[in-house]
Amino acid sequence: MALRAGDHSQVAMNGLKEKVLTLDTMNPCVRKVEYAVRGPIVLRALELEQELRQGVKKPFTEVIRANIGDAQAMGQKPITFLRQVLALCVHPDLLNSPDFPEDAKRRAERILQACGGHSLGAYSISSGIQLIREDVARYIERRDGGIPADPNNIYLSTGASDAIVTVLKLLVAGEGRTRTGVLIPIPQYPLYSAALAELNAVQVDYYLDEERAWALDVAELRRALAQARDHCCPRALCVINPGNPTGQVQARECIEAVIRFAFEERLFLMADEVYQDNVYAEGSQFHSFKKVLTEMGPPYAAQQELASFHSVSKGYMGECGFRGGYVEVVNMDPAVQSQMQKLMSVRLCPPVPGQLLLDVVVSPPAPSEPSFAQFQAERQAVLAELAAKAKLTEQVFNEAPGIRCNPVQGAMYSFPRVQLPPRAVQRAQELGLAPDMFFCLRLLEETGICVVPGSGFGQKEGTYHFRMTILPPLEKLRPLLEKLSQFHAKFTREYS
Amino acid sequence: MALRAGDHSQVAMNGLKEKVLTLDTMNPCVRKVEYAVRGPIVLRALELEQELRQGVKKPFTEVIRANIGDAQAMGQKPITFLRQVLALCVHPDLLNSPDFPEDAKRRAERILQACGGHSLGAYSISSGIQLIREDVARYIERRDGGIPADPNNIYLSTGASDAIVTVLKLLVAGEGRTRTGVLIPIPQYPLYSAALAELNAVQVDYYLDEERAWALDVAELRRALAQARDHCCPRALCVINPGNPTGQVQARECIEAVIRFAFEERLFLMADEVYQDNVYAEGSQFHSFKKVLTEMGPPYAAQQELASFHSVSKGYMGECGFRGGYVEVVNMDPAVQSQMQKLMSVRLCPPVPGQLLLDVVVSPPAPSEPSFAQFQAERQAVLAELAAKAKLTEQVFNEAPGIRCNPVQGAMYSFPRVQLPPRAVQRAQELGLAPDMFFCLRLLEETGICVVPGSGFGQKEGTYHFRMTILPPLEKLRPLLEKLSQFHAKFTREYS
Ligand SMILES: Cc1ncc(COP(=O)(O)O)c(C=O)c1O
Ligand SMILES: Cc1ncc(COP(=O)(O)O)c(C=O)c1O
Repeated sequence: MALRAGDHSQVAMNGLKEKVLTLDTMNPCVRKVEYAVRGPIVLRALELEQELRQGVKKPFTEVIRANIGDAQAMGQKPITFLRQVLALCVHPDLLNSPDFPEDAKRRAERILQACGGHSLGAYSISSGIQLIREDVARYIERRDGGIPADPNNIYLSTGASDAIVTVLKLLVAGEGRTRTGVLIPIPQYPLYSAALAELNAVQVDYYLDEERAWALDVAELRRALAQARDHCCPRALCVINPGNPTGQVQARECIEAVIRFAFEERLFLMADEVYQDNVYAEGSQFHSFKKVLTEMGPPYAAQQELASFHSVSKGYMGECGFRGGYVEVVNMDPAVQSQMQKLMSVRLCPPVPGQLLLDVVVSPPAPSEPSFAQFQAERQAVLAELAAKAKLTEQVFNEAPGIRCNPVQGAMYSFPRVQLPPRAVQRAQELGLAPDMFFCLRLLEETGICVVPGSGFGQKEGTYHFRMTILPPLEKLRPLLEKLSQFHAKFTREYS
Repeated sequence: MALRAGDHSQVAMNGLKEKVLTLDTMNPCVRKVEYAVRGPIVLRALELEQELRQGVKKPFTEVIRANIGDAQAMGQKPITFLRQVLALCVHPDLLNSPDFPEDAKRRAERILQACGGHSLGAYSISSGIQLIREDVARYIERRDGGIPADPNNIYLSTGASDAIVTVLKLLVAGEGRTRTGVLIPIPQYPLYSAALAELNAVQVDYYLDEERAWALDVAELRRALAQARDHCCPRALCVINPGNPTGQVQARECIEAVIRFAFEERLFLMADEVYQDNVYAEGSQFHSFKKVLTEMGPPYAAQQELASFHSVSKGYMGECGFRGGYVEVVNMDPAVQSQMQKLMSVRLCPPVPGQLLLDVVVSPPAPSEPSFAQFQAERQAVLAELAAKAKLTEQVFNEAPGIRCNPVQGAMYSFPRVQLPPRAVQRAQELGLAPDMFFCLRLLEETGICVVPGSGFGQKEGTYHFRMTILPPLEKLRPLLEKLSQFHAKFTREYS
């Protein structure tokens, strides 16, 4: 009963009904989503690991996952104090243990007091535990030289990813030529393109300037915007600073220019600042959009709409698995803000352990506290090693013919440009692969090094890149960089 | 420059530009979202708590949050073994502590081995840690009397909420009369209506039968479907068993009938089984859709598409704050399954601590292990108290004139029907409130008891209900139920 005509023949033919949910009937926007950081190359890396475990002979003994900004997966140790506070909250019996410092205990007690039923196991309010939102506000104020932050404008989230998608979701409206357009940098972190595809918004690309160390150029913003206005309604501008995958850190003047542009063109600003603690290059410094905006005074300070994102996944802590983060909104229409709060409440709350880690990150031990020295030492060690690895990466790659690498000023990635010989490009096309995907797949098969092709982030037509994290331990990184450079030389010979 | 005509006058008038993002320009689907469980009544409860803290005099001394299924917020203690394993994983130094049982340590080591960099701080693969997916598969096999479960069909998630929204997202397509319709029970858990509104799918209501203890009636499904086919394309059927807010546990015959119906009508089945451990009534038993489907044999077993959801937020553990859960898909098109996997990868991974708790929940201590006795005792104590509270709730409410409460066979809620006098209904309408919202707001103001009006879940026109959790501690529950019944009597007198 109730079968449609077409189904009957199907049933008659093989006794099987067609599935309800197929590629043809499913959400077409989901089909359009791409996410290179975890794409086919990573699936292949997983397979290779399995083959290695099963004793299959390979030209390498381990797969090196330089594809994702996941510090602890690469062996970085968690910061002791963060985990002490967390363990105390998870299992409050430990509050009686002599093995935990007093400041960790005080902090755990303070957080538990703020949890429903004094337990991490209760849902928090949807925007996050109030006490933690207050601590985040004080952190932002310190970071921004005293510029006030309102806890009610801060929403904790399930990693920064969640908050970014939520804000994009608010912005999406219209159809045809009134469809929301969102400007994103190219190369970009592919969460943006994926979310825009899923939400059926228009992705408007602006290209970062590789010749100027991937700087953002307002003339290019203007070009992209003008072109986009022909076919959609651009309403938001995303900036990633420090940049993923570019490693670029924006100068203050650049940020000012972006803010003026956004204001003049009536664009909602989204500042992805998850790498705010990851700045290594001399002369580079992190400037938050909030601070610059506020210091620019009227009309920007009181009017330009901004959402700024942060995360516990990056920085010196690298606590990716806990999925903690926040967004601060500035000058957002209060009615829209209520709508955002409502939307967040549907998912109940961000994971409470991630909220807790965020709290410790934004209010680390004070100099007077017993854990201060160890905390500082651990933090500095991580950041110093990252800085050394950023420098080493740039240096080794730039010694290799056919590879050119901008300075890694910040974040956790290099995004070198590689020359690929025409015959390799042709071979890739025969295989139906992007040329840099072909290069990266071959690299993986022959060396076990897993990096992500530039085509996954976007790049100027005819240029080829890959993204490699700077996260492998220092003693492994140099041989890795050299191996990669040698492979590139061999690959080039092979296809010349 | 680049201001549109309308803006100029605005700027001229008050020096302010209109905001980019306003109620008028924002995503219209988000505006339509409603989520009663955390709606205005809960915001008011928060305010009242603040007022109490500030010393404002109220006719009560505390606000009782009986609005949300959050056991630990109501004072339930976490299960010791779960927290021990978690603390060990969070802070592996504790593996040397004599204060933790050997089985907790073994388990922590096993899980850490399966984590990237042997740390909870690494991202996991997007579908969840493979080892845990395997443990979940074994749990499902035990639960379902040996019917096989494939770890590759199991996807861990950020609470069940996340998985439910993901599956709905896959199903949404079409426009106008081809727009995806999804059948949901009324009353429902409002995540469903909220997600459908956000995704711009059509909500198709089928009414549960209050006269038969909120049973699901296939004739009613048929009616709802036939009617919906006039204006949309119904493609999925959601069932919540045990029911929220109804507390109903479905009989096996009912599940069979639903499966036959879904198969005949070509509907993708979504079985929300987060309360599978919460069955209290004598004669009631949990039957998973997967098991029934498989036991029904051909053509259902090999063809009917199903997604079943579970969570660490409910059951005996009530670990809501950790946001752990999973979905098992059955007979899903493999191509669609890859699309789902891709979609999940955009958010990187579910919180790892929640994955870990799920692992312990699906593989609790064995009788031979040192923690078995305590674990069992704690688990049984929670479930026995819940059963007692379910019974007490039904009993006290049914003694009150004008309140009628179906048996709470399972889950964590009662959903009693209340008679409201016509003058109260009229007064509510004057205030622009749903009559049961008016009742619940007054209840909150006068007694501090926070419950959710039936209108937030859906109910037959002209009937009024509220949802109250059975979670307050037993010694508080009886006075609470009596206070509520007395308030209803007083309210009825006041408006008669
Ligand atoms: C630029 C950028 N934004 C956001 C994220 C999301 O991080 P998470 O969701 O773990 O906070 C990442 C992760 O790599 C990133 O690189
Ligand atoms: C029926 C039902 N499904 C799903 C959920 C979502 O729970 P969570 O996301 O915490 O797993 C709930 C929570 O109350 C529920 O009652």
